[in-house]
Amino acid sequence: MLSAASGITVVDITHLVSPGNILEGAFILNEACRYFPKGTVHVGVVDPGVGGKRKPILVETPDYFFVGPDNGLLSLAARSLGMKRAFELTDERFFLPEVSSTFHGRDIFGPVAASLASGASVELFGAELGRIEALDIPGTATADGAIEGEVIYVDSFGNLITNITKEELASFAGTPEVLINGAALDGVKKTYEAAEKGELLALIGSSGYLEVAVNTGSAEGMLKSGVGEKVKVRPKR
Amino acid sequence: MLSAASGITVVDITHLVSPGNILEGAFILNEACRYFPKGTVHVGVVDPGVGGKRKPILVETPDYFFVGPDNGLLSLAARSLGMKRAFELTDERFFLPEVSSTFHGRDIFGPVAASLASGASVELFGAELGRIEALDIPGTATADGAIEGEVIYVDSFGNLITNITKEELASFAGTPEVLINGAALDGVKKTYEAAEKGELLALIGSSGYLEVAVNTGSAEGMLKSGVGEKVKVRPKR
Amino acid sequence: MLSAASGITVVDITHLVSPGNILEGAFILNEACRYFPKGTVHVGVVDPGVGGKRKPILVETPDYFFVGPDNGLLSLAARSLGMKRAFELTDERFFLPEVSSTFHGRDIFGPVAASLASGASVELFGAELGRIEALDIPGTATADGAIEGEVIYVDSFGNLITNITKEELASFAGTPEVLINGAALDGVKKTYEAAEKGELLALIGSSGYLEVAVNTGSAEGMLKSGVGEKVKVRPKR
Repeated sequence: MLSAASGITVVDITHLVSPGNILEGAFILNEACRYFPKGTVHVGVVDPGVGGKRKPILVETPDYFFVGPDNGLLSLAARSLGMKRAFELTDERFFLPEVSSTFHGRDIFGPVAASLASGASVELFGAELGRIEALDIPGTATADGAIEGEVIYVDSFGNLITNITKEELASFAGTPEVLINGAALDGVKKTYEAAEKGELLALIGSSGYLEVAVNTGSAEGMLKSGVGEKVKVRPKR
Repeated sequence: MLSAASGITVVDITHLVSPGNILEGAFILNEACRYFPKGTVHVGVVDPGVGGKRKPILVETPDYFFVGPDNGLLSLAARSLGMKRAFELTDERFFLPEVSSTFHGRDIFGPVAASLASGASVELFGAELGRIEALDIPGTATADGAIEGEVIYVDSFGNLITNITKEELASFAGTPEVLINGAALDGVKKTYEAAEKGELLALIGSSGYLEVAVNTGSAEGMLKSGVGEKVKVRPKR
Repeated sequence: MLSAASGITVVDITHLVSPGNILEGAFILNEACRYFPKGTVHVGVVDPGVGGKRKPILVETPDYFFVGPDNGLLSLAARSLGMKRAFELTDERFFLPEVSSTFHGRDIFGPVAASLASGASVELFGAELGRIEALDIPGTATADGAIEGEVIYVDSFGNLITNITKEELASFAGTPEVLINGAALDGVKKTYEAAEKGELLALIGSSGYLEVAVNTGSAEGMLKSGVGEKVKVRPKR
């Protein structure tokens, strides 16, 4: 990117997404992107289908641009920020001269992002797309006054992040009890310290989702649990 | 930080401190900080008590500023560089508009650091503090002409760093022998290569502490040892 | 580096090279360096012999400078880009005032790189060297119309990269079959998706070497294989 646009500032958010884990990448991108300066070009490359059928794309939202594969990686950010337009990346003038089949982050996405950051207009890169691929995030359900969801992501601290949102919990009547893997957690806390050291608790994480955590520990390790684990929030009896 | 202060240079020292390991973070910060340009604002976030009773603080030393939680993380650097003043961070004008209870690195420390780097005066952020929290680093002891210490940190190479300093060793009479976990190491070497490949040795690490290492290997792995392991330096018999 | 040269741009390629793995570092450096702007100073520090007999050096190629230990780390890049000149780093004016025996990345290589990036002439740093140390990469062999090589590097996805090059394969007559650890892979594919999910395949990686991979998986894990594993490419029968 610095070869194509010497004046830009490049920030690495992370290179530690689990290989091929599109949901994890989408989650991190969606969380981090909104704190960057207006006009930032965000590049996301979790791309197990590189060189295959999936399209390289560009997404425009009110404040940002996103560049990456059309495999759902950009979809959480696009949806939460509001997608204005999306384009397929086809104009090879913006790519490296030689494009491999295995590393489009280097050969397509990086160079395109540098051109965008230098002010190139979004219409130049290819044809507009009517839609982009969505992620297959499981939905929550409600039954008998309880919310049923599941763990969709485990962060580097071992916190279990669920698909149940702050908004869903706000509409919940009464004191909640969070059930996961045999444990019943009393209420939704505000801080990790609200539990004793080494104890499980439920709280709203920094991204607005219900998470299950351990004060100064790993909920993943304590519950021997992970993505897909069912979580239920019900009125405390 | 770039949103609040577009002209600044942001350098990542590490994002690989073990979750919640305040001593490890303090150790890395203390080692790295002194090589940065005068006036640098150092941000440290190892913050298991986020959102709880611990204060968000700012520390001023002759050459640098430090921003982070008042849990000991900043204390090694503050002590070794000489703390001039410390302030509690209370003025919300310098925070993000919405402050979560779980991620003050993003909501408080980053934005405050950006304001400091842009030239804001330290007095603006809150009331001056008489003292900051110290780290609970175990002390060394001397008995019968020997120095007794322990491993306080294991680096990413598996080197075992102890709490015994270069200065303590300099005052040591005679050729030293370093005892750890049943091994007796002969002398304190100058380089890793002073031992055969795969062999244990003791040397003064780049931070000025006695460390136990393996030439092109891991002392942690070979000794099945870690933080808290007792180390003794005695005159060679 | 920013202390010595405030205007420079510092980019971290990686801090995740396996401890002491010079070949891995050389491989990553050789792959990444050529995409940086002309004039870039590349610093490589995989340095198990730090403080010992190995020389600190500087290598000049047509487009770049390389700084690091003379242990083979810089040799792949020097050879593939064409080495113009090499110099031993001996002039202490360019080092930190106090040079440790254990961290020349900080005390020598970083400061020298900063001076180079600021425009210091290569002749200033020390005497010219006739040659630099080469890496001990195993060569390939041909027998009965087959190419025999081996795995020299495993990347972070678990892809097994061999010492067999794109050029060697291009000269290969007929449809190839790739044999590794009991598996016979049919042909050399263009993309990971050319295999079914979870299936093994052979392809030319982004660095121009034959690699064995698993579509959305780890070949290292599936084959229980790693560096040194023999690989044979023969005409399909």
